Amino acid sequence: MQNLDVQTHRGDRRCVCCLVFACPRFSFCLVTIQAISWSSSGAVRIIDQRALPEAEITRDLESAESVAEAIRQLQVRGAPLIGIAAAMGLVAGTREQRGAPRAGFLARVNDLAALLGAARPTAVNLRWALERMLRVAEGTPGEGTDLWERLRGEATAIWEEDRAMCRRIGEHGLTILADGAKVLTHCNTGALATGGIGTALAPVYLAHEQGRKVHVYVDETRPLLQGSRLTMWELVHAGISCTLITDSSAAALMRQAKIDVVMVGADRICANGDFANKIGTYGLAVLARHHGVPFYCAAPWSTVDVSLADGDLIPIEQRSPAEVTVMAGRPIAPEGVTALNPAFDVTPARYVTGFVTDRGIVQPPFSEGEGEGGESLQ
Amino acid sequence: MQNLDVQTHRGDRRCVCCLVFACPRFSFCLVTIQAISWSSSGAVRIIDQRALPEAEITRDLESAESVAEAIRQLQVRGAPLIGIAAAMGLVAGTREQRGAPRAGFLARVNDLAALLGAARPTAVNLRWALERMLRVAEGTPGEGTDLWERLRGEATAIWEEDRAMCRRIGEHGLTILADGAKVLTHCNTGALATGGIGTALAPVYLAHEQGRKVHVYVDETRPLLQGSRLTMWELVHAGISCTLITDSSAAALMRQAKIDVVMVGADRICANGDFANKIGTYGLAVLARHHGVPFYCAAPWSTVDVSLADGDLIPIEQRSPAEVTVMAGRPIAPEGVTALNPAFDVTPARYVTGFVTDRGIVQPPFSEGEGEGGESLQ
Repeated sequence: MQNLDVQTHRGDRRCVCCLVFACPRFSFCLVTIQAISWSSSGAVRIIDQRALPEAEITRDLESAESVAEAIRQLQVRGAPLIGIAAAMGLVAGTREQRGAPRAGFLARVNDLAALLGAARPTAVNLRWALERMLRVAEGTPGEGTDLWERLRGEATAIWEEDRAMCRRIGEHGLTILADGAKVLTHCNTGALATGGIGTALAPVYLAHEQGRKVHVYVDETRPLLQGSRLTMWELVHAGISCTLITDSSAAALMRQAKIDVVMVGADRICANGDFANKIGTYGLAVLARHHGVPFYCAAPWSTVDVSLADGDLIPIEQRSPAEVTVMAGRPIAPEGVTALNPAFDVTPARYVTGFVTDRGIVQPPFSEGEGEGGESLQ
Repeated sequence: MQNLDVQTHRGDRRCVCCLVFACPRFSFCLVTIQAISWSSSGAVRIIDQRALPEAEITRDLESAESVAEAIRQLQVRGAPLIGIAAAMGLVAGTREQRGAPRAGFLARVNDLAALLGAARPTAVNLRWALERMLRVAEGTPGEGTDLWERLRGEATAIWEEDRAMCRRIGEHGLTILADGAKVLTHCNTGALATGGIGTALAPVYLAHEQGRKVHVYVDETRPLLQGSRLTMWELVHAGISCTLITDSSAAALMRQAKIDVVMVGADRICANGDFANKIGTYGLAVLARHHGVPFYCAAPWSTVDVSLADGDLIPIEQRSPAEVTVMAGRPIAPEGVTALNPAFDVTPARYVTGFVTDRGIVQPPFSEGEGEGGESLQ
């Protein structure tokens, strides 16, 4: 992987490292897998992440409805990737309407954006990407065809910015990972969660690329096992040393001083630094604090939602109890039992050593326009 | 269930509440399930706990080898039940040799005890029960047939004592569970783990019997899901209000003040009060401390191993990685990945509010012969 480094290329040239899909026209090629792309017909091509690691299935999603369904069913997941998928879904879903007059086309775009935005209520990137697309559509003069072309460019830009953003998170996070570092991570925050090399895994990818020895302990992340199914899959693909553990093993590993740093992602970060992430994150934060292990949250700046003052205001998605009670089609609990299945928990900012973002390693409180990059959330 | 209360009965009379198996000749009948018993032919009859909750399969284990295998494969599990099963397995496995002369019979008993003792290295009850059986065999005069009869009586006594012990743990633990209490538990420590109403679940059963409203949050307990498969099954059978959660949800529930008390079992308790229990217990202890939630360890006094000064001396069984990487026959991680699967972790005594034992709620340090009951471990 080392020799692939930061290679940029344009047009239809293909990068040898992109084994699954063609690269977008402008990108940094480090990852060996590509979680999302355009199909030749303009559909949204995804890896069906529910099928991993047993099968590598790609799907071409032709409509916004099918993209929304894929997001709901977690065929596509990971906060950044959901945003990209929604933006691309808006484009794929309006291909047939591009001959429409401006007003009709805009109405359709608004309807589909509402549909896509409702697919995962907690993920702020989803809303962020859709709002950006709507703003662009409204701000572009002309008829449906003009707006559609502009939206297509914007969706691709969101994807490419995400790819570059991942790389920047990785570069900032590199300072945390000394040679020999043992990292604990939760859920999946890598190439399968983003358009690039991930968020919390980006520093790991770059450390590996630079020849540093890193070892990743991967929480399996019940109930949907994004750690065992996805993170282990992509780390093994990349040749990065990793060990799978059950979620409840993390505490014992910390007590045995086997963890140097915890790196997790975020689905939404509030102005005060409280953040929502995959259920289990808060427990890791408490355990890390208790054992004196640094605890970092890595996320793109777009995950910061300054409209929310603190974590109590984050809506927590409650998912189907069947995700807890049924595994691989077999019941693992007696029929009809009550099960709780919150998708996320909220970690108060005071547990976080630092937020690794594309703007650097930052500390709350956060406000719009803050940071070295000066990008606007709006 | 309330009207069944503490009913004693002898001989071949059957208790209406023992739906699955006949009661032993002397017992307290509260439980609706019986995890172990003698078959009519003298084999060890068990409920195959691997098959729950999908199927209720009973197995008659005819030999000590098959009992050892059942213990190894977790068809029979739970520290107290393992001890009972091993004692009964020693009897079932020497039925054919009871005509042998004393020396030959004793040699056979010693061989089988070694075999059974090696089936689960961490469980102290296993060793305790087998040592008791060996002591009885050696202390009994006569030939094989005399020794075998004495061993059969002793195994049944171990079972009956366990049943009474569970009840005493429950009675002592009742003081912890006010009406309306919300209890978090881990793994399975109930009727399926013992010869009676369990250890950490015994106070819950008695509180329910007395008409107190208790609600049990049940950790699913990866990787083998004893919480979702077994604890939920027996609580539902008993009509006790319960909610299944993933292991990593416990922290968020504590933060939301939904947990009044944590009650867990123990596989081995050291002289200083450090104890080994199902992986995940230590993390719960840290989380409970952090959130100001009382954390109790409930176990029979026989779980105390005063020969171990502290938890660093407890051997931790490492089980097959396949238990983490394969679920219901399907791979949930890429083939060939490295996975850690420690069966237990060690919780230092300082995290424990109290040890709920058959001798009362006690505090370390522990020494032989201590406590109100004055029973000897040897």
